Amino acid sequence: MSPRKIIIDTDPGQDDAFAILFALGSPELEVLALTTVGGNVPLALTSRNALQIAELAGRSDVPVYAGCSRPMVKALKTAEYVHGPTGIDGCVLPEPEKPLQDKHAVNFLVDTLMAAPEGEITVCTLGPMTNLGMAMVMEPRIIPRIREVVLMGGGFFEGGNATPAAEFNIWVDPHAAAVVFDSGVPVTMAGIDCTYTAQMTPEWLQQLRALGTRSAIEAANMADFYRQYGSHKFPTEARPIHDACVTGYLLAPHLYEQKQCNVTIELMSPETIGMTVVDWWHVTGRRKNCNVLRRIDADGFFALMLERFGNLP
Amino acid sequence: MSPRKIIIDTDPGQDDAFAILFALGSPELEVLALTTVGGNVPLALTSRNALQIAELAGRSDVPVYAGCSRPMVKALKTAEYVHGPTGIDGCVLPEPEKPLQDKHAVNFLVDTLMAAPEGEITVCTLGPMTNLGMAMVMEPRIIPRIREVVLMGGGFFEGGNATPAAEFNIWVDPHAAAVVFDSGVPVTMAGIDCTYTAQMTPEWLQQLRALGTRSAIEAANMADFYRQYGSHKFPTEARPIHDACVTGYLLAPHLYEQKQCNVTIELMSPETIGMTVVDWWHVTGRRKNCNVLRRIDADGFFALMLERFGNLP
Amino acid sequence: MSPRKIIIDTDPGQDDAFAILFALGSPELEVLALTTVGGNVPLALTSRNALQIAELAGRSDVPVYAGCSRPMVKALKTAEYVHGPTGIDGCVLPEPEKPLQDKHAVNFLVDTLMAAPEGEITVCTLGPMTNLGMAMVMEPRIIPRIREVVLMGGGFFEGGNATPAAEFNIWVDPHAAAVVFDSGVPVTMAGIDCTYTAQMTPEWLQQLRALGTRSAIEAANMADFYRQYGSHKFPTEARPIHDACVTGYLLAPHLYEQKQCNVTIELMSPETIGMTVVDWWHVTGRRKNCNVLRRIDADGFFALMLERFGNLP
Amino acid sequence: MSPRKIIIDTDPGQDDAFAILFALGSPELEVLALTTVGGNVPLALTSRNALQIAELAGRSDVPVYAGCSRPMVKALKTAEYVHGPTGIDGCVLPEPEKPLQDKHAVNFLVDTLMAAPEGEITVCTLGPMTNLGMAMVMEPRIIPRIREVVLMGGGFFEGGNATPAAEFNIWVDPHAAAVVFDSGVPVTMAGIDCTYTAQMTPEWLQQLRALGTRSAIEAANMADFYRQYGSHKFPTEARPIHDACVTGYLLAPHLYEQKQCNVTIELMSPETIGMTVVDWWHVTGRRKNCNVLRRIDADGFFALMLERFGNLP
Repeated sequence: MSPRKIIIDTDPGQDDAFAILFALGSPELEVLALTTVGGNVPLALTSRNALQIAELAGRSDVPVYAGCSRPMVKALKTAEYVHGPTGIDGCVLPEPEKPLQDKHAVNFLVDTLMAAPEGEITVCTLGPMTNLGMAMVMEPRIIPRIREVVLMGGGFFEGGNATPAAEFNIWVDPHAAAVVFDSGVPVTMAGIDCTYTAQMTPEWLQQLRALGTRSAIEAANMADFYRQYGSHKFPTEARPIHDACVTGYLLAPHLYEQKQCNVTIELMSPETIGMTVVDWWHVTGRRKNCNVLRRIDADGFFALMLERFGNLP
Repeated sequence: MSPRKIIIDTDPGQDDAFAILFALGSPELEVLALTTVGGNVPLALTSRNALQIAELAGRSDVPVYAGCSRPMVKALKTAEYVHGPTGIDGCVLPEPEKPLQDKHAVNFLVDTLMAAPEGEITVCTLGPMTNLGMAMVMEPRIIPRIREVVLMGGGFFEGGNATPAAEFNIWVDPHAAAVVFDSGVPVTMAGIDCTYTAQMTPEWLQQLRALGTRSAIEAANMADFYRQYGSHKFPTEARPIHDACVTGYLLAPHLYEQKQCNVTIELMSPETIGMTVVDWWHVTGRRKNCNVLRRIDADGFFALMLERFGNLP
Repeated sequence: MSPRKIIIDTDPGQDDAFAILFALGSPELEVLALTTVGGNVPLALTSRNALQIAELAGRSDVPVYAGCSRPMVKALKTAEYVHGPTGIDGCVLPEPEKPLQDKHAVNFLVDTLMAAPEGEITVCTLGPMTNLGMAMVMEPRIIPRIREVVLMGGGFFEGGNATPAAEFNIWVDPHAAAVVFDSGVPVTMAGIDCTYTAQMTPEWLQQLRALGTRSAIEAANMADFYRQYGSHKFPTEARPIHDACVTGYLLAPHLYEQKQCNVTIELMSPETIGMTVVDWWHVTGRRKNCNVLRRIDADGFFALMLERFGNLP
Repeated sequence: MSPRKIIIDTDPGQDDAFAILFALGSPELEVLALTTVGGNVPLALTSRNALQIAELAGRSDVPVYAGCSRPMVKALKTAEYVHGPTGIDGCVLPEPEKPLQDKHAVNFLVDTLMAAPEGEITVCTLGPMTNLGMAMVMEPRIIPRIREVVLMGGGFFEGGNATPAAEFNIWVDPHAAAVVFDSGVPVTMAGIDCTYTAQMTPEWLQQLRALGTRSAIEAANMADFYRQYGSHKFPTEARPIHDACVTGYLLAPHLYEQKQCNVTIELMSPETIGMTVVDWWHVTGRRKNCNVLRRIDADGFFALMLERFGNLP
């Protein structure tokens, strides 16, 4: 079987780095491009980080397209309090050798999806969904051409993390998320209900570091920084590695508890804006527009990720 | 120690019946009155049911005041699909011997609270919070006189049951809830995050029925009807007995996991109206206005309730 | 024909004083009571002012009932910047001789409306509609007993005055207004679209003062204070005398341009809350629930008011 | 003085046609391009109509770029009930000879504005503001490069026309309007408060038709169709010619009453979404972000437009 073609839309972010490296180490996936967005840190940094991560994996052939520097309607909020000022604090990576592509990520998405056979390309979003939402408004004919959108974002039973009700990625650009969720495209959501169930432990990080490769060591360095945040919430030293759950789902969906639900993106109330309202019990009778991921087999997940880091330089 | 004085504001409802009987069987509590509201079923039925339940407990001395037949702003929605057309389907109780009191429940709340020493009376709400919200608007000076408001309603980590985001009692009258939560009064909330952790099993109901008293038998009959609802959600035959958790908290707060949080009642979005937005992780920095109950020691809870049913005729 | 029975719910306010005096001077109207609400100034002041105004008119027989000191859901906002710290700055009136009635205004409304024949009593609200909204929630059976609600509040084509979108009376308690407008009761609205078309001129005030009676002189004194506000908006020294338009409508509806429209009270957006959304062109197809007053024949209106002041001591 | 460079973003629409022809007949304006959007009718039709109108004016040199077929967040609503199924019913125009440009209108706006000197180009929007809003999100650096945005849309003192509160262009894509109004760009708004004050009379249309040119005759034919709508609202046979007021303002701003105000686009309430909340009396203290046009000297306006039609073939 030929590898599954994916575009990774991302705002690295240490957990984005894990997701990207996990994908680049997996022969079942063909990463067509990285597209970047303002999110965890501003666009200039997420774009540089994306280049650096591809090069860390020895994959400077993967093109990187910079996208939107701001959300569709709201003003941008970033999360340096989680990720550090660079977005990938913890590691030391050389300046990228290759430049960004000239084309805007939104145009890349439109052009690539329009040119590809219907149902071929999967779009993975690891940050605010601005680029994909914008592309769908620019050219709605891309919608039926997408095989699946798999996103890290949202949540329900865990509440939110940016506000009591909203998870960061959706809260930063709820309008873009609403465009995607309402579009009719098949959507799979790895929200924090899912990502909190696969926590990276110090022991696993030791195993990762023991691989001895640059990719593994710098990833472990990033994780050591990233793990500092969250001590008010998580009782042990283990931490979720959010975005990597998207890659894990693409490779091994059987490791995930899944349920088809209606998910609505809340846009109206200042108290709840950006909430993914998940109709888990199907009380609304609305169309089930989202495959909601919940519990992960964490052992299986981390074993797989470790194995795939073994494929990287 | 003299018993704690409480007013039970209620919309029986089989689970209200358990909460009331549990309280009437407990010498630590002095039930000053039952006040009724439209909620699970219309006011005329909740009022009759309240009279019948007091009489079932041999306590026709407890006065019953009928209150508001509709919420403060929204139109009333009822839940016969859960409780049956009478609200307490499952049992057969004689017509009440005593009439309702002449005074409106809202006026009873105002007059009683204004006449009592400050901090003496606890108000327990088991249904939509209309009567208490109305009383606070009629006469705001009651607010500092209330010892504590303990309510069954809301939820967060379980989502809602009336809509994906909102629990029934708050959803029916979110504006009344907002008045109470914003008032500054000490509020303790037993939402569905809490009540789902104490589920009544068929085995416990056998023990209840084995008490052989009318109160126990009719309560068990009610529970048998009430347990029919919820099979889509709960994997076993056990079911929550929501309102009874309020009584349990008054008697044995040590059985409950508790956390002080800010709780805001969502009023603005049609998607999330009636949601209790619980700032569990204190990300908003707002005043902690609510004692949020979460996990109950179910064994301790049901042992206590069984014991107290033993005090009833 | 026997006089039309009205209850005036009010938050004096100089313009409330004009409305009340205008009514007390008119034999076609029988003022059953004044009920007071927190609005232009806090309840303690509006209640005292109502007593003083009744006594200024020589009508200490008209009972005054104090009502709600705060709106149904929002916190109270007052308008001393318009009315001065007493609410009726400009005049000097003796302390009231008669006390307030013991009964709460909401209970007075419920009891009086329930006791009267259906369709007999008109309720005029000159301030936030809290008391009437509360009464309708306390006892919905009053709704079909009311002949008509005539209110000063709202507006549409003039925008708002408290915010760009909302007029003060509705903005202070939009939820109470929503209860009344949605109740099915016949509603006539004198919003600022109407009241701005009948402006009190210095010349008319000279005529009023020339009546030489205490009522006329103190009313003119109030008007002189009240006229100071509004110079940023009104090009001449003439000013609207808002609440008096309610009395004028009761006496001489032919002086008013009128149209039946759907009016919805906006409750959801922080930008527009309290707006009276008037479907003037009937684009929504919704039920026409309100008689919207617009242009007044100002000459006719002021001639009538002057004549009626002539009946007062 | 060299002519003012403008881009006309449009969804023709008969009144768009007048605005475009008025501009093309005016030597003070250099029309760089027409960009089209879904609005009055779907994008395929507005694009064809734009080509036809340019060719009617003998200006097939003006390039036409098709833009977004749907709003940024909401689903598209069109207005065939006003404009007829083609959008420019009433005239008969040949199929366009020139094709649309290959580039997407949003990319054209970004590329052109980035390439031009700062403050050189004015963007006129005659329909939903989707293309400009999208361009500002794609590339925020265009914002300080725009000289001025002049739009037909919104209103305040006239209420709305699509809903009681919202004018059609803003209501169709309120989120795009919010992006533009919040961007800091200089905005001039010709809302219906303005456009209703310059109504096209049958007499003026006779004068137009008497010019005898194809442009004049087909414009008059369009106007005759367009005038059929509005009889429920306008008392005579005269009708507003909305979009043409944008061109008039560019040529003769002295004909317009103007006031700098804060204008906020309402996004939250289903009742008022798409409303332009105009703080005419500056009660909010917010930044004055919009030059709000109100009364037009209609005689001057129509004289000027007639003269400029005289320059067209």
